[in-house]
Amino acid sequence: MPDLRNRIEGIFTKAPFMELLGVRLLDVGDGWVETELTISEQLRQQHGFAHAGVVSTLADHSAGAAATTAIEDGRSVLTADYTIHLLRPGAGSILRSRGEVVRAGRTLIVAQADVWADGKHCARYTGTMAVGDRPV
Amino acid sequence: MPDLRNRIEGIFTKAPFMELLGVRLLDVGDGWVETELTISEQLRQQHGFAHAGVVSTLADHSAGAAATTAIEDGRSVLTADYTIHLLRPGAGSILRSRGEVVRAGRTLIVAQADVWADGKHCARYTGTMAVGDRPV
Amino acid sequence: MPDLRNRIEGIFTKAPFMELLGVRLLDVGDGWVETELTISEQLRQQHGFAHAGVVSTLADHSAGAAATTAIEDGRSVLTADYTIHLLRPGAGSILRSRGEVVRAGRTLIVAQADVWADGKHCARYTGTMAVGDRPV
Amino acid sequence: MPDLRNRIEGIFTKAPFMELLGVRLLDVGDGWVETELTISEQLRQQHGFAHAGVVSTLADHSAGAAATTAIEDGRSVLTADYTIHLLRPGAGSILRSRGEVVRAGRTLIVAQADVWADGKHCARYTGTMAVGDRPV
Repeated sequence: MPDLRNRIEGIFTKAPFMELLGVRLLDVGDGWVETELTISEQLRQQHGFAHAGVVSTLADHSAGAAATTAIEDGRSVLTADYTIHLLRPGAGSILRSRGEVVRAGRTLIVAQADVWADGKHCARYTGTMAVGDRPV
Repeated sequence: MPDLRNRIEGIFTKAPFMELLGVRLLDVGDGWVETELTISEQLRQQHGFAHAGVVSTLADHSAGAAATTAIEDGRSVLTADYTIHLLRPGAGSILRSRGEVVRAGRTLIVAQADVWADGKHCARYTGTMAVGDRPV
Repeated sequence: MPDLRNRIEGIFTKAPFMELLGVRLLDVGDGWVETELTISEQLRQQHGFAHAGVVSTLADHSAGAAATTAIEDGRSVLTADYTIHLLRPGAGSILRSRGEVVRAGRTLIVAQADVWADGKHCARYTGTMAVGDRPV
Repeated sequence: MPDLRNRIEGIFTKAPFMELLGVRLLDVGDGWVETELTISEQLRQQHGFAHAGVVSTLADHSAGAAATTAIEDGRSVLTADYTIHLLRPGAGSILRSRGEVVRAGRTLIVAQADVWADGKHCARYTGTMAVGDRPV
């Protein structure tokens, strides 16, 4: 799906904060994406784990990208609200995430994302995205 | 309250990710803290607003610091889960936040945080913190 | 504000489940409502407290009614999602709630509600409401 | 698993509000339960759908029962907070729910529940449960 991948890739390359965190798009399909980042020193909290803000940002981005696969080209989604449950400390060197659409309505999309730190499930995210007219 | 301020300040200086975001502690009292950061170029998303991950991290940190004022010295809190409602785009140059304890139990603390971008209310956060034995 | 009160009262009288729970509208203004119910035997859980489902329903209804004060007559709101923090057991005989609009957008409204059981703060609710064309 | 079923069944029969809603335990295993209720007239809102409070209560109960399968006999769980996304109106005559443990810690359990109305996915719930010493 080269077109879909191109469209979604834009979300990851256009945002300076995504570049700062080093978020990479691994794979994408209709209704889902997979992403990862390397937990560099500057992304850690005082006990050496990935900061909860980093885990949340990765989850939100994966969910938003998954939602974007479910809307027309030329439109974009904006997170209205989200809830994240931090299940375990983000220990190790790689955070990986999978975002999935739970329900795509005309104006609102609910998406979920999970995050694993070196393969251990460390967060579950559920968010509500508003579909808007602004391009990605 | 120099002792309280010293204790809370540690949360802001020991975490590399807080340093990366440039979060500053403005003021602190029993059950509340006020914080801010400058929305530098690298903290923005593709449309020029503060990235939702930055807004969330600031809110989570303010709420966690507020909760820390409500526990004994030598213990710390860990966010178990939180919900954030993004009310407006984070436009402008300064994000300011106030975190407040809603209810402090023995093992769980519920805290709220609001975030303003150049004075406009842009996010409301509510989180559940688990009280733990690890020092800050 | 007799017109506003009439309009909001409809939300409380038209829903059979509200009648079953005995929810009463106490007062209403622009952006807020106050409600209450008597914790009858059938609304309790196994330890004698108001069931969390009752507390949640009252909070959701107060928040929804508050949001309804912020939209045009002839339209209505539907809860898209909500988060509730249960702060204390709902002990006693009366649950009272106050719902307030946090932010009213054109298509989405964020509203908060608190619940007290015999005067003790037992729950905080934050919800996202979608504005729709269906009358109340 | 007759012992597990007996233990979980107690949660459904001891709470008057569960009796009022007519919640039935369908099946249970380690880490999950399935439940249902009939959407009687008194459980509806003004447009004829299952009231959001009914959907929430069923989801919370399924998640709480799933969490109870993950703790020792003689202890119980209490919902600290939950988030629910209402995906579709609860149309029809039967609400069915499946609750599952996402992560069971020593003091906190995160559980998810989904609800279907006549087979259509109408809600996703995620909650944090505190493990306590009180028997079920």
